[in-house]
Amino acid sequence: MVHQHDESTANEVRTTSQPPYDPSQEPFMYKVGYPPQKNLAREFADTFRETFFHDNPLRQYKDQSGSTKFMIGLQFLFPIFEWGRNYNLSKFKGDVIAGLTIASLCIPQDIGYSKLANLDPQYGLYSSFVPPLIYATMGSSKDIAIGPVAVVSLLIGSLLQNEVDPVKNKEEYMRLAFTATFFAGITQAALGFLRLGFLIEFLSHAAIVGFMGGAAITIALQQLKYVLGIKSFTKKTDIISVMHSVWSSVHHGWNWQTIVIGISFLAFLLFAKYIGKKNKKFFWVPAIAPITSVILATLFVYLTRADKQGVQIVNHIKKGINPSSVHKIYFSGPFVAKGFKIGVVCGMVGLTEAVAIGRTFAALKDYQLDGNKEMVALGTMNIAGSMTSCYVATGSFSRSAVNFMAGCQTPVSNVIMSTVVLLTLLVITPLFKYTPNAILGSIIISAVISLVDYEAAILIWKVDKMDFIACMGAFFGVVFASVEIGLLIAVSISFAKILLQVTRPRTVLLGNLPGTTIYRNTDQYPEARHVPGVVIVRVDSAIYFSNSNYVRERILRWLRDEEDKTNTEGPSKINFLIIEMSPVIDIDTSGIHALEDLYKNLQKRDIQLILANPGSIVMEKLHSSKFTEHIGSNNIFLTVSEAVRFCSRKSMQEP
Amino acid sequence: MVHQHDESTANEVRTTSQPPYDPSQEPFMYKVGYPPQKNLAREFADTFRETFFHDNPLRQYKDQSGSTKFMIGLQFLFPIFEWGRNYNLSKFKGDVIAGLTIASLCIPQDIGYSKLANLDPQYGLYSSFVPPLIYATMGSSKDIAIGPVAVVSLLIGSLLQNEVDPVKNKEEYMRLAFTATFFAGITQAALGFLRLGFLIEFLSHAAIVGFMGGAAITIALQQLKYVLGIKSFTKKTDIISVMHSVWSSVHHGWNWQTIVIGISFLAFLLFAKYIGKKNKKFFWVPAIAPITSVILATLFVYLTRADKQGVQIVNHIKKGINPSSVHKIYFSGPFVAKGFKIGVVCGMVGLTEAVAIGRTFAALKDYQLDGNKEMVALGTMNIAGSMTSCYVATGSFSRSAVNFMAGCQTPVSNVIMSTVVLLTLLVITPLFKYTPNAILGSIIISAVISLVDYEAAILIWKVDKMDFIACMGAFFGVVFASVEIGLLIAVSISFAKILLQVTRPRTVLLGNLPGTTIYRNTDQYPEARHVPGVVIVRVDSAIYFSNSNYVRERILRWLRDEEDKTNTEGPSKINFLIIEMSPVIDIDTSGIHALEDLYKNLQKRDIQLILANPGSIVMEKLHSSKFTEHIGSNNIFLTVSEAVRFCSRKSMQEP
Repeated sequence: MVHQHDESTANEVRTTSQPPYDPSQEPFMYKVGYPPQKNLAREFADTFRETFFHDNPLRQYKDQSGSTKFMIGLQFLFPIFEWGRNYNLSKFKGDVIAGLTIASLCIPQDIGYSKLANLDPQYGLYSSFVPPLIYATMGSSKDIAIGPVAVVSLLIGSLLQNEVDPVKNKEEYMRLAFTATFFAGITQAALGFLRLGFLIEFLSHAAIVGFMGGAAITIALQQLKYVLGIKSFTKKTDIISVMHSVWSSVHHGWNWQTIVIGISFLAFLLFAKYIGKKNKKFFWVPAIAPITSVILATLFVYLTRADKQGVQIVNHIKKGINPSSVHKIYFSGPFVAKGFKIGVVCGMVGLTEAVAIGRTFAALKDYQLDGNKEMVALGTMNIAGSMTSCYVATGSFSRSAVNFMAGCQTPVSNVIMSTVVLLTLLVITPLFKYTPNAILGSIIISAVISLVDYEAAILIWKVDKMDFIACMGAFFGVVFASVEIGLLIAVSISFAKILLQVTRPRTVLLGNLPGTTIYRNTDQYPEARHVPGVVIVRVDSAIYFSNSNYVRERILRWLRDEEDKTNTEGPSKINFLIIEMSPVIDIDTSGIHALEDLYKNLQKRDIQLILANPGSIVMEKLHSSKFTEHIGSNNIFLTVSEAVRFCSRKSMQEP
Repeated sequence: MVHQHDESTANEVRTTSQPPYDPSQEPFMYKVGYPPQKNLAREFADTFRETFFHDNPLRQYKDQSGSTKFMIGLQFLFPIFEWGRNYNLSKFKGDVIAGLTIASLCIPQDIGYSKLANLDPQYGLYSSFVPPLIYATMGSSKDIAIGPVAVVSLLIGSLLQNEVDPVKNKEEYMRLAFTATFFAGITQAALGFLRLGFLIEFLSHAAIVGFMGGAAITIALQQLKYVLGIKSFTKKTDIISVMHSVWSSVHHGWNWQTIVIGISFLAFLLFAKYIGKKNKKFFWVPAIAPITSVILATLFVYLTRADKQGVQIVNHIKKGINPSSVHKIYFSGPFVAKGFKIGVVCGMVGLTEAVAIGRTFAALKDYQLDGNKEMVALGTMNIAGSMTSCYVATGSFSRSAVNFMAGCQTPVSNVIMSTVVLLTLLVITPLFKYTPNAILGSIIISAVISLVDYEAAILIWKVDKMDFIACMGAFFGVVFASVEIGLLIAVSISFAKILLQVTRPRTVLLGNLPGTTIYRNTDQYPEARHVPGVVIVRVDSAIYFSNSNYVRERILRWLRDEEDKTNTEGPSKINFLIIEMSPVIDIDTSGIHALEDLYKNLQKRDIQLILANPGSIVMEKLHSSKFTEHIGSNNIFLTVSEAVRFCSRKSMQEP
């Protein structure tokens, strides 16, 4: 059967100044290239480097003397030696202002967050003293503000209370908390040290948005206990239990004085936030609003003795700096495994948050952040923290944003904050005695509310519906079930998406854009024309065991569909199947088996299989498995248009 | 800075018969297409269909009357109604011969395999009676031979004895075995019914080769117990424990009569195998060799009363057909969870084996096999089996190959085999009394030895070193640790490979093949030339949360490398970065963030970002996230060569 092959399809419309000639007679100019042979060790080394050291951290060590190398190594581990040398007074001024601002923000937050973790208030302050100091020497982000954060506090609190009762077995609970913190640090440092930092990237952006939003709602709901002055409150965190608690206590559990304090200061804080958002110049208004509210509310309670009216107050915060907790960490017994598990989860979540924050601000100020190095710094700081009565600390988004806007220059702002916290611990903790819990609740609500990033959710909805499902799954999982379940949903959906991507890769039918040698997806370009007698399929993925059967079957289905179409349209028969392989970055033995099956199947139907533009790795593998000999290496072409030209020439020869 | 852009790079050498003209002034002919807008429901439906129903199983129902639809549905569930209608005597003849051959092979194997599962011999025979009958009505493979297989028997045996002692608590052990079989069937049927069959494709070919080879070695080692006549043998399956057992019993544990029988018949069986392999006509020699050996050895022992000399014999096989075991399945209590776990593992491994076999023979005879339908058939057969005293059955590779070579036509050969097993159970089991265990050991060794597919391993080594590591990991895991650990290693390495693929996608630098408009990987095509002032990078993967940071950093590194190169070579500056997006099948919000970060970063360095040929889905998402507006939609081109043409035109305008 002769089929009419339109010659112009094989031509490029943008001609050169060369004389016209008959293109169908011209020899093919380039052969598909083989890559230069690599030996085994080289190949392994390359893969290894690309996986773990793609950022080439040793680049600057090249061609340096021994002492310089040592200095660079020291600077690598302790960036303080790098930025410290150029430190000056003007930078210090920026850091002092930023440090004082975030300190005023962190003190009330710390006290509140330690309640989320079911710990006494001083532990929150402890965690804002030691970890920031360590981070300042080792961390490479200039903007991140270190300390306890809401989501991790909630997470560690709810994971710990699944194991130990925080009221009845207070001592055991605290020991487990330090154990978990220790293992969180070990996890973080190990991931960084082993350069496995990319593992945290398996939590998709969408899942994080959902999880954070859900956690924020949950945390805000927990604060109703303090803002409404409810005495007996559920230990569960899901919205149904919490609302039930709130509702059942409406008649005799609420305290109107507490409500007045809580609501009015919440309004004040939200208003301050609004002002800060309206005009960037007033960023300091929401930053100092919390400490102002604490001072005002404490004074108010102290003067009116409202605590006698049932307004709950902080009462006692232990004075003095962090005691050692080395002896409290479990290194044997059944609690080790539990602490390890909780630590790994909290460590990963903490990392995800800190690295995301670090990257955001690094991008804004245009400096590079080595994720793995950052993890070592965060891990070391948490290990040290676990030995000095701290619980898991990480980068706080709200405080980092304030730090940034207040004009921080280096991690010295963390040192300033830490110093203020130290003074607080040494001198003024007794002054917090009359601070009402309600004001802490209000501060936390106003802090976490901005974690509900509805704008991001809307964008996700617009861009990718599957991502939106992941986002909502995580959100509702946290809100209606628990933090752990939300996290589990987030991770599962993220993984499912990856797995789906590798099992069901896209294959598209290509057509010729009239007047060019360009072949494009016929769905995207409706003007693209099918070449008679030829089916051209592009496979948009590596062909691996996970998708080889699908790819083979899908290609056959494209062929069948096209055959059905030509049957109804006319008598022309499909003679050639061209697989455009450009996007096929790799193939494994299963993939080659699939191609071989396809080849055999096509042979029976008298259809010739042609490959266009296989990449170097693929060519090498096809060659070593003898598949190229099988189909004939002249059936492999550099481009689709050359392959089509070959087909049309061939079908003219054999009518 | 003017850079010298060689005009011919933007031209295609294969010209048309049109007159020459200046290509750099010509307008661009095509714009990058947007796909036709789909509404939400349509989009979901498409993704859903492509994921679960890519083979379009409902295709044949289209445009049919009600009764035809019912008939097609019936034929779909029970393919027997399809092939049964064309069944004839000549097909029956083929099936009878094949059925008798595999029956003679399966009876001795069944007795041996049930020992691997720590069950009495009759259970192996039971499992070759009911399941094949059910499969014959529901299965769509024409060649597969159903029954107990070595690897699954070993697996279920070692998993079960971790939970219950097979000697001390025989009854409990058996009940747990039926429970596991029940759940294996449920798992298989559910996977098929929910069309989740693709889940079994996450075990890579390489991992399966290694796992099977390791299991074969382990099984062969276990048979030393019978072949050497050792009385006290370890329960562990790793090679070190087994060799230790063998060695420590060398002086008074071995029985020379047993060894003589075992070794001589093993030699006979291997010789028969060799003949069958040499000449395909003699395929029946290895097929009937086992039953011949059994008969000869049994006669020999009976006549010489060698059992009095310490030759261990089968002794007693219970006569009669399968008793019901419905009441023995645990539906409550702690054993349910254990049975479920074991069942899921055995069910998945069984499926993997059966589907691989089915596909192999379907490809040989050129018919399509619906994997999901096959799973429903296998699942149903195991559920029925669990109620009739069978343990997990699946497709056996060795028997299926014999079935195929003996000329089976339809699943009727399974029915014939099943009938022979039935007769055996009813009539001749007492004759097996004097069958020496040694001969069963020899039969199993000769059966499993071909599972050690060293040729496949060599091919894997040649094609993909990473795959080879997976293969060897699984192999040594099974041989030196245990079946479960080997399986775990196989699954983990398979997953790790997938995850690696999605976190570290390939990016390559493109160059122009002189005299064409083709741009190719400069590594693969050393003749490809860099375009001055332009860096062209191709990203060979979807850009997702799991790789967005890597992709961004890697592109910047390509740019940096090129800048370093041009700095040493000459004064020309990089002005354009072209990202060839053809292989980028999808992008999510994280990916768009990465592109935006990249864009901002490049803007600061005064480098223009240009995209070439984004696909339809990517275009849609870039559009809905406003990224196209951001970079300007005239910076998106249909091909790299058009983008390069644009760059050269632009840099000529702005010297």
